[in-house]
Amino acid sequence: MTLGVTDLERSRRFYKALGWTESSGSQTEVAFFQVGSIAFALFGRESLADDADVSPEGSGFPGFALAHNVASESEVDVTLLEAVAAGGKLIRVAEKAPWGGFRGYFADPDGFLWEVCYNPFFPLDEHGFVQLPQ
Amino acid sequence: MTLGVTDLERSRRFYKALGWTESSGSQTEVAFFQVGSIAFALFGRESLADDADVSPEGSGFPGFALAHNVASESEVDVTLLEAVAAGGKLIRVAEKAPWGGFRGYFADPDGFLWEVCYNPFFPLDEHGFVQLPQ
Repeated sequence: MTLGVTDLERSRRFYKALGWTESSGSQTEVAFFQVGSIAFALFGRESLADDADVSPEGSGFPGFALAHNVASESEVDVTLLEAVAAGGKLIRVAEKAPWGGFRGYFADPDGFLWEVCYNPFFPLDEHGFVQLPQ
Repeated sequence: MTLGVTDLERSRRFYKALGWTESSGSQTEVAFFQVGSIAFALFGRESLADDADVSPEGSGFPGFALAHNVASESEVDVTLLEAVAAGGKLIRVAEKAPWGGFRGYFADPDGFLWEVCYNPFFPLDEHGFVQLPQ
């Protein structure tokens, strides 16, 4: 999963302020973070578009949200506060969702959305990762 | 990770045609797939924007790419062909990247980008997931 960002150093600082540990495989122009089984990468927005051979033009809602599932409603609130303290923007204060969970949203420095969610129907495993029913 | 899509049934068919197994936790208006430690969700684009309390307006390059790392250059080609056979659009034919890997891109039915990549510097674990150096 690669985010194309407008200011790599700003984004690098933000995700490290969230408590993420950067991989030693990072380089000046790309930052990697291991998130469970996923490599999460930060790369320049223009560089990413260029690598895919598409136009970098685009604006508005990007049509996706990342999510961080936590173990309780109070942990949703704490995680949102931590994200704001790290420089994130509060987008939606946490509240009950129609489907029975509890969630709020923050945005990273580029406005990419993160949902922070307590889903009582999908338990977390011992590493804190969500486990869907098969 | 949630993609906001314009035609949920079309996207559901596409990702299942890639060989993904849908979770029984899915519902009519949301599809879930377990991908390693991540829950990958398909949800309506307008519904996702509404859930985050942001405008659904947006167009062009969405500023991110998903990625599927594989174990060899030939597997990159095969995976791209399989994605096209499943209804994906070939965006960039696989070739050597300046950093020494081998990658191409396809797009899902909404145009969301997927990089298919062989990275000789980041090995895969026994489950096929990328392992960054610490």
